Amino acid sequence: MPNSQVFPDIQISLPQWLQAFPFRHDRIYPHLQERMRLVIELSRLNVKHQTGGPFAAAVFDANTHQLIAPGVNLVVPSHASLAHAEMVAITIAQQHRQHFYLGTNAQQSFELVSSTEPCAMCMAALAWSGIQQLICGARDADARAIGFDEGHKVQPWQDSLRQQGIGVKCDICRDEAVAVLQYYARKNGLIYNGRSEPFQGSNC
Amino acid sequence: MPNSQVFPDIQISLPQWLQAFPFRHDRIYPHLQERMRLVIELSRLNVKHQTGGPFAAAVFDANTHQLIAPGVNLVVPSHASLAHAEMVAITIAQQHRQHFYLGTNAQQSFELVSSTEPCAMCMAALAWSGIQQLICGARDADARAIGFDEGHKVQPWQDSLRQQGIGVKCDICRDEAVAVLQYYARKNGLIYNGRSEPFQGSNC
Repeated sequence: MPNSQVFPDIQISLPQWLQAFPFRHDRIYPHLQERMRLVIELSRLNVKHQTGGPFAAAVFDANTHQLIAPGVNLVVPSHASLAHAEMVAITIAQQHRQHFYLGTNAQQSFELVSSTEPCAMCMAALAWSGIQQLICGARDADARAIGFDEGHKVQPWQDSLRQQGIGVKCDICRDEAVAVLQYYARKNGLIYNGRSEPFQGSNC
Repeated sequence: MPNSQVFPDIQISLPQWLQAFPFRHDRIYPHLQERMRLVIELSRLNVKHQTGGPFAAAVFDANTHQLIAPGVNLVVPSHASLAHAEMVAITIAQQHRQHFYLGTNAQQSFELVSSTEPCAMCMAALAWSGIQQLICGARDADARAIGFDEGHKVQPWQDSLRQQGIGVKCDICRDEAVAVLQYYARKNGLIYNGRSEPFQGSNC
């Protein structure tokens, strides 16, 4: 940090294992289940490598089904409560495109595949991102069942997103996504919530 | 970027003028209006220097009233729709403390002073951050009046925050905060919303 800089930068980096992950050479995952299973595998590896919470997400080109940017939950290692998997994936996609809005080109649209239904923050962030379709694996209730708070959402949240021009598909490979949440719970992973007892678990 | 790195990092830096801003030597701003006026001045300078939208925020120690971290809206220059002033200030405060949760020490609590009532994303982010008090200048309606969308909020949002243990004070120096929004509108600053015509304005 240069001497002239009083306040630190924000820097959030994907884990090394994710940079080295063997994505398909063309990064195209034509079927919805394939895209979700890839994301669920990233959530599982994030738990296995102890690089964050049991959540992953990825931005795909909604027409070609090419992976644009993956994300995993990095709240604990990056010291940033905003570093949820969805925020990480969306922001890396925006860095890749060098624009804050993914919907600039009318010929292209983008899909966010999330291993668990987004929390209230990530849900609201979708509207600013240019994402046009949300695909969810596990439900809000599945995350709450292992102790994660999901925040206060506008209900019904699906209607709220659709009013903002964002399509929604839920319960894609839900059981497989839930299995990763349960794997994290069995490992006694840190449950880092807001108000409600943020410091349970073994890592804190 | 090393060859092994496929996906870019997320890096968000405060503007140079803000790193060089003449904060008080001890950074202590004892009175609420002083803290808000400092934040409003940062919002004005962000417009003047064309480094982002007309919004600023800052995290203060709620007991000593010392500034911990300032933030300004950096959505456009950092190519990141999450880079709202509140998210920037909170995350820099967390980087400073090297922890994702600002409420770890029971002896300390933190206040977020925001030049305008936070949007739906930033409102939800408060619960994950450890912030215990929110102070707002301009209202949601003031931001909407110059064309910014604030998203779909749980209503009444003050009750939602209070249920999550976060106190709220509104309308602090509201007229001064609104004057900066109007200054931005007069300069024909970019209004970067989600769905609704994101590319009005002169910078895009």
